[in-house]
Amino acid sequence: MATEQEIMQALSKVNDPELGRNLVDLEMIKDLQIGADGVVSFTLALTVPTCPMREQMAYQARTEIKALSGVSDVQIAFRAMTEPERQAVFSKAGQPRLPDLTQMNRVRHMVAVMSGKGGVGKSSVTAMLAADLMRRGLKVGILDADITGPSIPKMFGLPPGGLRGGEQGMLPAATKGGIKVVSTNLLVPTEDTPVIWRGPMITGAITQFWQNVLWGRLDVLLIDLPPGTSDATLAVVNSLPIDGVIMVTTPQDLSALVVRKAVRMVQQLNVPILGVVENMSFYRCPDTSAPHYIFGPSHVEEIAELAGANLWTRVPINPQISMLCDAGQAEQLALPEVQVLADHLLQLEPRPGVARQV
Amino acid sequence: MATEQEIMQALSKVNDPELGRNLVDLEMIKDLQIGADGVVSFTLALTVPTCPMREQMAYQARTEIKALSGVSDVQIAFRAMTEPERQAVFSKAGQPRLPDLTQMNRVRHMVAVMSGKGGVGKSSVTAMLAADLMRRGLKVGILDADITGPSIPKMFGLPPGGLRGGEQGMLPAATKGGIKVVSTNLLVPTEDTPVIWRGPMITGAITQFWQNVLWGRLDVLLIDLPPGTSDATLAVVNSLPIDGVIMVTTPQDLSALVVRKAVRMVQQLNVPILGVVENMSFYRCPDTSAPHYIFGPSHVEEIAELAGANLWTRVPINPQISMLCDAGQAEQLALPEVQVLADHLLQLEPRPGVARQV
Repeated sequence: MATEQEIMQALSKVNDPELGRNLVDLEMIKDLQIGADGVVSFTLALTVPTCPMREQMAYQARTEIKALSGVSDVQIAFRAMTEPERQAVFSKAGQPRLPDLTQMNRVRHMVAVMSGKGGVGKSSVTAMLAADLMRRGLKVGILDADITGPSIPKMFGLPPGGLRGGEQGMLPAATKGGIKVVSTNLLVPTEDTPVIWRGPMITGAITQFWQNVLWGRLDVLLIDLPPGTSDATLAVVNSLPIDGVIMVTTPQDLSALVVRKAVRMVQQLNVPILGVVENMSFYRCPDTSAPHYIFGPSHVEEIAELAGANLWTRVPINPQISMLCDAGQAEQLALPEVQVLADHLLQLEPRPGVARQV
Repeated sequence: MATEQEIMQALSKVNDPELGRNLVDLEMIKDLQIGADGVVSFTLALTVPTCPMREQMAYQARTEIKALSGVSDVQIAFRAMTEPERQAVFSKAGQPRLPDLTQMNRVRHMVAVMSGKGGVGKSSVTAMLAADLMRRGLKVGILDADITGPSIPKMFGLPPGGLRGGEQGMLPAATKGGIKVVSTNLLVPTEDTPVIWRGPMITGAITQFWQNVLWGRLDVLLIDLPPGTSDATLAVVNSLPIDGVIMVTTPQDLSALVVRKAVRMVQQLNVPILGVVENMSFYRCPDTSAPHYIFGPSHVEEIAELAGANLWTRVPINPQISMLCDAGQAEQLALPEVQVLADHLLQLEPRPGVARQV
């Protein structure tokens, strides 16, 4: 049967998402009891009584404890912390956290892949671009800023738990070919664990993925942004020293509308748009070789004009992209259209102080 | 030449997104000057000096003033408010706001269309479902909860500015066929104006779209959710009295992964999943009539099993959907697969107290 120490160790893997520290450190575990029948019960003392994350914390706590030997059931009660308990927590939460590693991270090009619109293929474009750069012998990293809907780890076959944190900061996971990856889906216990975080937590995670990760020397760090023009995008644009963004769109006019919002947002925030990519441009029918404009005629020239940037490439719909990304083999994707994209990216001026290839 | 009064009236159309009140009410306009050459200049006194929304407010203010006759240019300086100015604003911001209209809104079915993943076609499914219900003679509304990337107004050809607010609350816009619509893209000056709002503002907007809108009597109110499991989804699930969600997915395994996160989220928050929809199931080649599984084999049965809900329908890829949605004619879309979806929805139990068709 699991001991109290083992249970507390399991619970120390579960974080309060609002405070970013684990349940044990935060002294949230009260009245822990281990029954002879294998039933583990305790009370979760919440810092805020109506905490919307309570179910998520309980779910994760239950999952961790059930994995221990001899545990038949886990019963969790909730109560609010008393005022003295709460004060103790908040003084503790203010303790020093992970060290700032930005001085040790030397990155030649730091580029965010953005769209505003969801499902246009930001992540697959990011993955294919990284794979192309890696095949050229460059050192490449991907910072997955899509905190609630991360796709990058699955595309490269990286399992949950691949990201390890220590006193010295976090070390990225690495793909077979050596692309360094940081993503929430390397932190969660299972790949479909939801991350139910509000804006400030999302901002915090993205900032940490840069400041507290030992990226080291990289030729290119790509940042895969989620859809929208809210907290995640503001965090990347305001807190990370990016060179600019690559704007991804699809032919559909409706996508173009939402992408135009993203263009105007980065313009208002004075962030350069480096180039424009059209994804899912057409589908080449394997039976007849004819191109089918499934999502309608292109609007990418208008987007490029609004963005004041060049159209860098058009990527066709290719069932192989879905297939290899689903199979975790994105590194094998080598489209000529993506090679053109990589050529454009590498023609950019390097960041000040990182003049030569690292 | 525009008068000071006209300029102030124009500026009263621009809101501080963090405070939800207009620049004039908030006394943010200082030192307004109108030059003989048509140059309008003023200082925007910010409640927070580093306000990330300052460029957005300035942009909107400039757009509004430039629309006035005789204005050749608009020059805006920034400064932080003094402490007395700030205190005056915050005491004012606490004044009563729009009235709560939830008692006047009688809705038979209130259903959120969700996915977790972007670009799977939540909005087009929502629009086609609304159109089908409308053709049956039912009273239908759409609450567009995708605050930063709204698609619904464009799909129905509804222009910006269609939503009017008054002392009595907001009145929805209406499509040709009479579907009532509320969306941020009915509030912004142009359809591609970005809405750069952090989480609390998004939560506030969604709550207002229900509480302060005169929806009246409806058979069905559909809520079009954005991607992700963050503030917008939490707002809909925690603040709106929904019956449950329709979960939309696509065949790609990568989409299914992110959709599974959404399923687990709503399960943790004890929200019923009413049914599952697979969109973009296949593409029927117009040349050969053969189905092409462009996004790979389906994973929807697994999603339905995880969700504990039935697969309600599979919607094929159909270029007509893109075409009519892009043209603002979503009401003309009448797919048999969507009819099946509407049939399922109407078999649900009505909400307590709204037993008969309204």
